[in-house]
Amino acid sequence: MKKIEHIGIAVKDIESSNHLFATLFGKEHYKTEEVESEGVKTSFFECGPNKIELLQATHEDSPIAKFIEKKGEGIHHIAFAVDDIEKEIERLTEEGFTMIHKKPKQGADNKLIAFLHPKATNGVLIELCQDIKK
Amino acid sequence: MKKIEHIGIAVKDIESSNHLFATLFGKEHYKTEEVESEGVKTSFFECGPNKIELLQATHEDSPIAKFIEKKGEGIHHIAFAVDDIEKEIERLTEEGFTMIHKKPKQGADNKLIAFLHPKATNGVLIELCQDIKK
Repeated sequence: MKKIEHIGIAVKDIESSNHLFATLFGKEHYKTEEVESEGVKTSFFECGPNKIELLQATHEDSPIAKFIEKKGEGIHHIAFAVDDIEKEIERLTEEGFTMIHKKPKQGADNKLIAFLHPKATNGVLIELCQDIKK
Repeated sequence: MKKIEHIGIAVKDIESSNHLFATLFGKEHYKTEEVESEGVKTSFFECGPNKIELLQATHEDSPIAKFIEKKGEGIHHIAFAVDDIEKEIERLTEEGFTMIHKKPKQGADNKLIAFLHPKATNGVLIELCQDIKK
């Protein structure tokens, strides 16, 4: 794992949260993106080598809607950048971790992603992500 | 804010969590430290430019014990590195954020730290930290 690629934060209202985090960082988000398969609207802020991803549910069955219902707004996941996501999934599976995604899938921000099951990681939802080569 | 300095993760048993995160990262933690004023034992893992800080309560009145009681194990806070923590506290206070610490205090890992109140930051507990010049 090369670095924290981003932290995902579940929010109820992405417009007001964009304003809040822009004030916090002293600069605006650099992109927004909707990921239909996940039922989320996202916006991204840069912070040096890292990013913050705000996540708002687009429908009530979205994982983000369920998270907020259960735990309230707040940090949803940590994403680590990896060079070879398939190799990392294989290594972690061999080490006894449970993958939610056994094969990488398309995520936001031009990445291949896969989530680990938080039951095996101290309640922390961890995402692996790899840049898609253009 | 220059980067995510670290993510703090509240754990019940730091020994077993050290083993878990060492397996995840493929390398051991690089230091441990007890911060008596906060009632925590900590251990630190490097991940490129970022760190993961595991936090275990040393007594039942520790903020970490209370956090786990309320929310369970998981991500406790995000710490952002800043160059001048006093200036950043002043800027954020002027912007309307509520600081838990209006003056920087000594934290783990040779840092001056100050926390923002999560009520004003979408439920995310945010720490500012500045290296103490030697």
